[in-house]
Amino acid sequence: MKEVSKLMGVRDSIRVVDATLRDGGLVNDFYFTDDFVKALYDANIKAGVDYMEVGYKASKEMFDVDKFGKWKFCDDDDVFEVLGDKNPALKLAVMTDVGRCDYKNDVHKCDESPFDLVRVATYIHQMPGAIDMIEDAKNKGYEVSCNIMAITTAQESDIKVALEMLGKSPVDVIYIVDSFGSFVPEQLARTADMYNEFAVKYGKKLGIHAHNNQQLAFANTIEAVGDGVDYLDATYNGMGRGAGNCPMENLLSFLKNPKYQYYNAIKFVENYMVPLKESGVKWGYDLQYMLTGVLNQHPRSAIAFTKDGRGDYCEFYKEIMGID
Amino acid sequence: MKEVSKLMGVRDSIRVVDATLRDGGLVNDFYFTDDFVKALYDANIKAGVDYMEVGYKASKEMFDVDKFGKWKFCDDDDVFEVLGDKNPALKLAVMTDVGRCDYKNDVHKCDESPFDLVRVATYIHQMPGAIDMIEDAKNKGYEVSCNIMAITTAQESDIKVALEMLGKSPVDVIYIVDSFGSFVPEQLARTADMYNEFAVKYGKKLGIHAHNNQQLAFANTIEAVGDGVDYLDATYNGMGRGAGNCPMENLLSFLKNPKYQYYNAIKFVENYMVPLKESGVKWGYDLQYMLTGVLNQHPRSAIAFTKDGRGDYCEFYKEIMGID
Repeated sequence: MKEVSKLMGVRDSIRVVDATLRDGGLVNDFYFTDDFVKALYDANIKAGVDYMEVGYKASKEMFDVDKFGKWKFCDDDDVFEVLGDKNPALKLAVMTDVGRCDYKNDVHKCDESPFDLVRVATYIHQMPGAIDMIEDAKNKGYEVSCNIMAITTAQESDIKVALEMLGKSPVDVIYIVDSFGSFVPEQLARTADMYNEFAVKYGKKLGIHAHNNQQLAFANTIEAVGDGVDYLDATYNGMGRGAGNCPMENLLSFLKNPKYQYYNAIKFVENYMVPLKESGVKWGYDLQYMLTGVLNQHPRSAIAFTKDGRGDYCEFYKEIMGID
Repeated sequence: MKEVSKLMGVRDSIRVVDATLRDGGLVNDFYFTDDFVKALYDANIKAGVDYMEVGYKASKEMFDVDKFGKWKFCDDDDVFEVLGDKNPALKLAVMTDVGRCDYKNDVHKCDESPFDLVRVATYIHQMPGAIDMIEDAKNKGYEVSCNIMAITTAQESDIKVALEMLGKSPVDVIYIVDSFGSFVPEQLARTADMYNEFAVKYGKKLGIHAHNNQQLAFANTIEAVGDGVDYLDATYNGMGRGAGNCPMENLLSFLKNPKYQYYNAIKFVENYMVPLKESGVKWGYDLQYMLTGVLNQHPRSAIAFTKDGRGDYCEFYKEIMGID
């Protein structure tokens, strides 16, 4: 059981990371207006959020720039134009995906870019690619984190090898990532213990990125807080792929540090997220996501089910279970 | 941290209690059709649910029978008419509220009634009334449980006195009740430990009744499972007052005992709960409920906000915080 002091007190090492534009962008192909992005930036500052992830550095060889909003590519100039120069009140982060990012060319030196944190996302079979990207970003002067995705379908012995590799790399933060929304809190606690062994051994910080397939994104995130995880991803109104993420307003209401002001998160939800949802952008918990989460599957079938406007959950269950 | 075996194995002492008609009835004034109730009964049997709570035994002196559906009063004859004679496959339960139930007259002998379990609900200042109702029900041959409501606004020293009283009473099951949806799992764990002291001392079982104000009803329920709590309340699609309850489909998907078949829960949601919601009955998580949950307040202000179709969360926050 966690100590009461971990609930009631302030832990200065905690960092809240707003991933609305990045994980939320997967829902609307990154077509956020400049006004929305600027308002999000201002809301994050008022709410005390520590980092704002503005999107991906996606390869323009691999993705058609005409089919996505600019936050999928996050050209430095675009970010400067909308958000201005670096402001110590809110650090900016960008995600680079192994195999989907021309990082040698597109990630520029930290002191010439709008970003402070590069977040490398990788599958466990791509670890050498991730290490190369981590070293590249570190050499360019960034804080660097690494997300090993989809770990609920990886074996713990393989995860330990990957954590050893990250331990020896210059990465600063290692994220526990529940891509499929498949963890229950007790599993998350055991996973955090495993990650902590390597974090302690190598002097790394830990992070948590949760998905809400089982209505457990917030629960898993606060479980992680109690387990010593410091970097906490959240998105306004839980906006994110499929069932979405840990809601920022819930997370900030839980953290007792007075720097975090959840009133400002609620204000942003009221003024920007509710209208966005009413405009037809879809995300959030529903049974199809619970099913892929429980079955530890990629949510793509559930996303297609949602897109098709289907409501025949039982048929869907049979489909993803292979019951003919 | 919980043991892996508690997640992966079967604990025979667990009982799942469907509270859809009772807590859900607070949302639609108990106007469920006979067809709905019969289908729910059948679904519960197929899903392996252990108890079905069909409503309240509310006083007809206090409540106008013309203003509520029959499940608020649960006349034995009405229950027999819709659900037939007792069936060992699914026990029926009914709730009696201290001060709102003419239990001496309306609760009949167990072997003449459709019910096996009487659930006494009380506030902590009404404990002597609850004890009297517990003894009355026990003398009539029932299994008896007791919900001490709204404990998040009670002091632990008072709760311990109440638990001591229940320990010495003939009650079978003592429920941990998070009426305001205010607990986070770590607090729930500590509360379960406190309840467990008395449960062990007096040979009682424990139960959990959670609300979803902070999107934690399911998380708190499975936390309780890991803490040795056996009686687990849930409702289909989480239907219940305000933000609702722990969803049955999530709970059954979590329990590994093969007697629990969540496919049948999903089927009932698809065929009955989704149409019910589409007909205009409102329940489920929204920010106004998060706010009353975080602030540990009764949800009545949030329910009124919902009923009025309001979306001005920031104004609501100011209202319930008394910020003029």
